[in-house]
Amino acid sequence: MARYMPTPQTLRRPNPILLCPACTAAPASASFATTASPTRQGRENLGLSKRSSPLNTLYHSNPLRMAAVTPSGTRAWSTGVVRSSLIEPDGGELMDLMIPPDERAARRVEAAALPVVRIRMVDLEWVHVLAEGWASPLRGFMREDQYLQSLHFNSIRMEDGSMVNMSLPIVLAIDDYAKEAIGVSPHVALVGPNGEYVAILRSIEVYKHNKEERIARTWGTTAPGLPYVEEVIRPSGNWLIGGDLQVLEPIKYNDGLDHYRLSPRELRKEFDSRQADAVFAFQLRNPVHNGHALLMNDTRKRLLGMGYKNPILLLHPLGGFTKADDVPLYVRMEQHSKVLEDGVLDPMTTIVAIFPSPMHYAGPTEVQWHAKARINAGANFYIVGRDPAGMGHPTETRDLYDPDHGKKVLSMAPGLEKLNILPFRVAAYDTTHKKMAFFDPSRAEEFLFISGTKMRAYARDGENPPDGFMCPGGWQVLVNYYKRLQAEEAGEHPTTVSV
Amino acid sequence: MARYMPTPQTLRRPNPILLCPACTAAPASASFATTASPTRQGRENLGLSKRSSPLNTLYHSNPLRMAAVTPSGTRAWSTGVVRSSLIEPDGGELMDLMIPPDERAARRVEAAALPVVRIRMVDLEWVHVLAEGWASPLRGFMREDQYLQSLHFNSIRMEDGSMVNMSLPIVLAIDDYAKEAIGVSPHVALVGPNGEYVAILRSIEVYKHNKEERIARTWGTTAPGLPYVEEVIRPSGNWLIGGDLQVLEPIKYNDGLDHYRLSPRELRKEFDSRQADAVFAFQLRNPVHNGHALLMNDTRKRLLGMGYKNPILLLHPLGGFTKADDVPLYVRMEQHSKVLEDGVLDPMTTIVAIFPSPMHYAGPTEVQWHAKARINAGANFYIVGRDPAGMGHPTETRDLYDPDHGKKVLSMAPGLEKLNILPFRVAAYDTTHKKMAFFDPSRAEEFLFISGTKMRAYARDGENPPDGFMCPGGWQVLVNYYKRLQAEEAGEHPTTVSV
Repeated sequence: MARYMPTPQTLRRPNPILLCPACTAAPASASFATTASPTRQGRENLGLSKRSSPLNTLYHSNPLRMAAVTPSGTRAWSTGVVRSSLIEPDGGELMDLMIPPDERAARRVEAAALPVVRIRMVDLEWVHVLAEGWASPLRGFMREDQYLQSLHFNSIRMEDGSMVNMSLPIVLAIDDYAKEAIGVSPHVALVGPNGEYVAILRSIEVYKHNKEERIARTWGTTAPGLPYVEEVIRPSGNWLIGGDLQVLEPIKYNDGLDHYRLSPRELRKEFDSRQADAVFAFQLRNPVHNGHALLMNDTRKRLLGMGYKNPILLLHPLGGFTKADDVPLYVRMEQHSKVLEDGVLDPMTTIVAIFPSPMHYAGPTEVQWHAKARINAGANFYIVGRDPAGMGHPTETRDLYDPDHGKKVLSMAPGLEKLNILPFRVAAYDTTHKKMAFFDPSRAEEFLFISGTKMRAYARDGENPPDGFMCPGGWQVLVNYYKRLQAEEAGEHPTTVSV
Repeated sequence: MARYMPTPQTLRRPNPILLCPACTAAPASASFATTASPTRQGRENLGLSKRSSPLNTLYHSNPLRMAAVTPSGTRAWSTGVVRSSLIEPDGGELMDLMIPPDERAARRVEAAALPVVRIRMVDLEWVHVLAEGWASPLRGFMREDQYLQSLHFNSIRMEDGSMVNMSLPIVLAIDDYAKEAIGVSPHVALVGPNGEYVAILRSIEVYKHNKEERIARTWGTTAPGLPYVEEVIRPSGNWLIGGDLQVLEPIKYNDGLDHYRLSPRELRKEFDSRQADAVFAFQLRNPVHNGHALLMNDTRKRLLGMGYKNPILLLHPLGGFTKADDVPLYVRMEQHSKVLEDGVLDPMTTIVAIFPSPMHYAGPTEVQWHAKARINAGANFYIVGRDPAGMGHPTETRDLYDPDHGKKVLSMAPGLEKLNILPFRVAAYDTTHKKMAFFDPSRAEEFLFISGTKMRAYARDGENPPDGFMCPGGWQVLVNYYKRLQAEEAGEHPTTVSV
């Protein structure tokens, strides 16, 4: 079983396992260093203490999703068949690359006899993404023909001539030694960061990893300082290995958040069981402020206005690799929980789940991946904002991408025709009405724009943002996080001092 | 009328107007410096002296094409209607952006009252490309939605949902001053390098020119030293202007080669009049050696073997911007002429014409453009070789592109499904049989590979390549060119010396 192991950044990402009331077993790796809040406070932070274990056996440990369970009697629980009533998965079939439980023992024996490819944490995140079908119709890490199509066309042609979107290369890099060790073997075993057997990669193809070209075509720049490039690509090997993936065991991180990691199949089941007639996805990697909430609530109203009876929001924070100054996943999940608890978003019509993908910060190229993966999870509406997946240029004082290109590119992307794109309306803080509101150009001077960077700066500096910017409970989560972080950075965490 | 004016490089590209027997008028600009061969020799070089003026009024000045006119009586001359029997132009309609002759006077008056955008020689080449429909269905320089699709997807979606290939951004850059001068005018006049009115650009859209992103996504690198980047893009303005193009006068270069510049419409007519049942295009920017010829002749045999009765070769040298160390167009045209004269290629089944596009040296991205433009000219087969449109990496000692990527990308490119891609078989010099032959790996040591760089080095150093590498007449053209070039560089050209 693959596990998230402690890293040098552990203190910045304390393991919040105790925050989850449904997970009674401690994780296998008990040696995690942690500065997390004590159990009770953690439970209260997530607003879980008042909730009881619900009916649903599939997602029994997801308190946010469960908040929607009501005694109204109107819900028809799914019987296990995944309908695709709202939108078909890309390629028509949702990939499931897990080896069935009764075959795992035999496949483990086989894996143990194969040449080994060691993979890193971020590669494991991609194994997770592939295994659950987020990247359908991919059946494994890309072979060269898929890689080239992704790089040049942001899309891949199916055998019937139709196109599916595929804007990010989902590839596995190996070095010269690994390539030599593989020799002529047609299959390899993937071994995770902790030495565990993760998967078998079959009918492999090894081809050159031209990093410069990959970076230039994916990011539209080769400037130094792109997080994924510097931390993942540049240190990686000069070869890529593609093949068909067969995963030995569901990927678990044992970080107390696994219950939020619903697969596309699970999400589709959930939408069906809620009798959703529209699903609108909101991708994010930042805390939810009231501007986001306004937008999501407004979207729901618009969908109701269009005649939909039961639009469901998929609030879908990204859970994989992020850059160092982003708010860590466990803090964001705690914050999202508060936002639902405080009633800013309606738990009845919202599902919160973690999207397991790593983050590229590749703007218009990446937003296509974010949208495409949500198609596979059953979302037929996708909300896109200003400068999605963007960041500042790493070496120049400007945005890396034109803030409008993301939604333009998304709206024209091959393979995404079936998805309804909902462009973001710009929300800002209305200083007259003291709340987040859609920007009104006729009284522009009354609006205050608070960027993610600015928001983090407020929290870091212990300043309060204007009233109405974020629900108080959610804000407190951020303040607490930055306090802990500063204490840690100042060396104020408890130590044993020898006198 | 737009004209190619002398540049500092004039001596390296002498004006070979006198080589053309059909052009009796001297060019308007009589001040061209020239080191070209005298008239008679030039005519003989092109093998024209024995040929008389033929029937065809449309292409009366193209001696290579005319070589196919025979008294066999089997030819049915086209009546002026362009059939599209072999392959439809992209988008179903071949663009013709020329203003009809009877409207030109009025449009000139209109142009004179519009804000002016000055364009460079390379921009004029693109006006030429657009005007004749090589880039169909484009109706002018790209607006932002087309630019973004080209950059991200190498293809553009038509209104009916179909995709056409469009891998290179065909854009016009302007600077801040030009943008300001345009103001809110919906149309602008394009004024050429010599101050002549070239075209009107209508319903314009001005948008940002992010050069770094354009370069990275087009070339897959941002390394300094890419010819088109350094000479065309980096010196250009920070804005792009798109719109519908209306061209005031056919683009002429008055370099003695205009008769080779057949438009897609003219080529289609010619294929029809020759009753071609297959047209295979060969893009090149180098002299033709016997390996190329072997390949082209072999392709014809294969097409005959497939049941085609009259496959016609379109030998289609690129005529626009090329890098400084490439062999100049007029030398290449002279060399190609010799190749036909010496019987290495069959004039009966070959049309030689100039493709007016500038060269990007953008490998797999550019080869799509090269192929797509030939669809518009009526070619339904395209020959692709090793490393098409490639070059050495400008700062590293390696090829910029994987030599196999060009043909792979081409074979998968959206919008090119209707084109038959014919991968190049590798030809090399067979030292045993003393001729160019398809490489036989079982006796690899008997083959000698002579690259374009090596070929140019031979000619420059006055060395002869092995017998059978190139026809003697064609080789002599190259040797003469490099002798003239060296003489020029050594300052040995005749001068008046004051004593």
